Amino acid sequence: MAVKLNFNNGVVNMNMGAGGKASHLLIEQLMKKAFENDYLNQGNDQAILPKMDGKLVMTTDSYVIKPYFFPGGNIGSLAVSGTINDLAVSGGTPLYLTVGLILEEGLPLRDLKTIIYAMAETAQAAGVTIVTGDTKTVEKGKGDGIYINTSGVGILNEKQQQTVGSPLQSGDKILINGSIADHGVAVMSKRQGLSFESDIITDAQPLNGLIAELVDAGISIRLMRDPTRGGVSSSLNEWANQYNHAFILDESALPIKTAVLSACELLGLDPLFVANEGKVLLVVAAEDANKAVEVMRQNPMGSEATIIGEVGKKGNSYVSMQTSFGGLRRVDWLTGEQLPRIC
Amino acid sequence: MAVKLNFNNGVVNMNMGAGGKASHLLIEQLMKKAFENDYLNQGNDQAILPKMDGKLVMTTDSYVIKPYFFPGGNIGSLAVSGTINDLAVSGGTPLYLTVGLILEEGLPLRDLKTIIYAMAETAQAAGVTIVTGDTKTVEKGKGDGIYINTSGVGILNEKQQQTVGSPLQSGDKILINGSIADHGVAVMSKRQGLSFESDIITDAQPLNGLIAELVDAGISIRLMRDPTRGGVSSSLNEWANQYNHAFILDESALPIKTAVLSACELLGLDPLFVANEGKVLLVVAAEDANKAVEVMRQNPMGSEATIIGEVGKKGNSYVSMQTSFGGLRRVDWLTGEQLPRIC
Repeated sequence: MAVKLNFNNGVVNMNMGAGGKASHLLIEQLMKKAFENDYLNQGNDQAILPKMDGKLVMTTDSYVIKPYFFPGGNIGSLAVSGTINDLAVSGGTPLYLTVGLILEEGLPLRDLKTIIYAMAETAQAAGVTIVTGDTKTVEKGKGDGIYINTSGVGILNEKQQQTVGSPLQSGDKILINGSIADHGVAVMSKRQGLSFESDIITDAQPLNGLIAELVDAGISIRLMRDPTRGGVSSSLNEWANQYNHAFILDESALPIKTAVLSACELLGLDPLFVANEGKVLLVVAAEDANKAVEVMRQNPMGSEATIIGEVGKKGNSYVSMQTSFGGLRRVDWLTGEQLPRIC
Repeated sequence: MAVKLNFNNGVVNMNMGAGGKASHLLIEQLMKKAFENDYLNQGNDQAILPKMDGKLVMTTDSYVIKPYFFPGGNIGSLAVSGTINDLAVSGGTPLYLTVGLILEEGLPLRDLKTIIYAMAETAQAAGVTIVTGDTKTVEKGKGDGIYINTSGVGILNEKQQQTVGSPLQSGDKILINGSIADHGVAVMSKRQGLSFESDIITDAQPLNGLIAELVDAGISIRLMRDPTRGGVSSSLNEWANQYNHAFILDESALPIKTAVLSACELLGLDPLFVANEGKVLLVVAAEDANKAVEVMRQNPMGSEATIIGEVGKKGNSYVSMQTSFGGLRRVDWLTGEQLPRIC
């Protein structure tokens, strides 16, 4: 006689992460149903996957976002999108994800179910399979509802290796697939109980399809990165450091929604430092830049794709911005207080 | 002028997980030095790995053990051993690990450093590379010092596929590479402030080398599992369920250290349900059992390897134990309160 978990009013208890019968029930009655696939049904602590023809790409991210439900998404959809994107920006094809859950005692099982199904739906829409997982529990006051780790692997094919990763050249263009700062502002607004006339929602979405279209079109992609924590500015500063080139943004070309800009002013945030979860920052050869914009605009995830700057001289590891007033200002790393637990 | 982190008296602050300069410092001054390798030095949010010739094996585990330092190890050495073992028991060769850290504000940087170096040393000793990672921070009171996720991939070769995984037969032998319950008892003793005349320490160790020796020797391994949370009993019950066979243990053959047995009595624990972190439970063809024991005993990690029972009839999904008094008792799932946060 199997015990049925109560997904309406039940809560997570410590035994659900202890590896015995309660853990088993959670796997059978929730995880296996949501993530259903043959790898998971192997029923072991590891999944055996097919042989993969190409170089492997591997990544990991833990998600501690607060609150775990926010406008336009939740920690589950975010955890799947984010890790898919970390794989996709290598130019590779994301294939398999693992899920590690740390659940706080008392988490409503209803919330857990919503989050798990959001993970399953996001993965399915992106064509990625969740192949194995692990659940741990911690006492009330030793967590914050739910933390999720997703790790993933993907594959690099020949075409991807030809189009992605050639050396930077002065004059290469910097592109983005749409408006910046939506995710961070949506989360901060919710956390601080602010509401705005127009809804600001997260941009979290898996970008593997959009990026595959760029690769298929043969665009010479020098660099790709998803500007998450630390925003566009941090990604560019990391690149400037890594590649010893200047990166120059054009302020008037930066796509920012009016509502997001107002919210940033209210919250005291610089949109260049605010996290995105459905954006890809690209550096492409100058001659391919317009074609790359065209390709992206044909996909709903890139309908507002645009050129936002260019690569400057080698030997200068800084990021600057041509301001709307005609000046040039330095865009530094954010050093002070940052937005905590935004992903 | 680079800021130097203070690994003597400094503590983790929220910015270290926010993706800006503080995160960057932690990566440069700790992670890269401890884990040094070319994959990590790619400096991206994902690692590009070589082509792998064989089926892939993938696993994930989050570690929330309390306390994070315990006799014989710490959460770092455990997190690396545990995930290597989850890969190794598939019969595959563990190759690459990822590390996802969730750090509580206020964690001493000295403790973090000790843990990170323990991860690096354990991985190196096992011949496994830590290729990418992620660090998040949570506010004081929203974590418990440190939680670690390790995910990993490995590869299955032809020989492994021939020797591991053939169908169970009545009379197959159940083997283990040494004494049970050491890890759980070491952690619980430390947590409860108990001390014993003889030291009880964790058995946490990476078993990939030992398992590779069994595979190389051509042993017909039907099943392998690392009996961690829930102990030997849970692993056997999972198998009984999955394969619809009875599993019969021989109580007099179970290797348990005297000090561990005494501690179990004091703590009210049944050693069959207590976690191990350096043990592999094997089912091998009856004719290979003695050879398997011999092979293991030549390795220090298997010096006390022994046969502890056998597979019973098909069609009976239960686990039982031939007691020292001559009776047969049922070994069920542990249903009540379990040991929380033992791994």
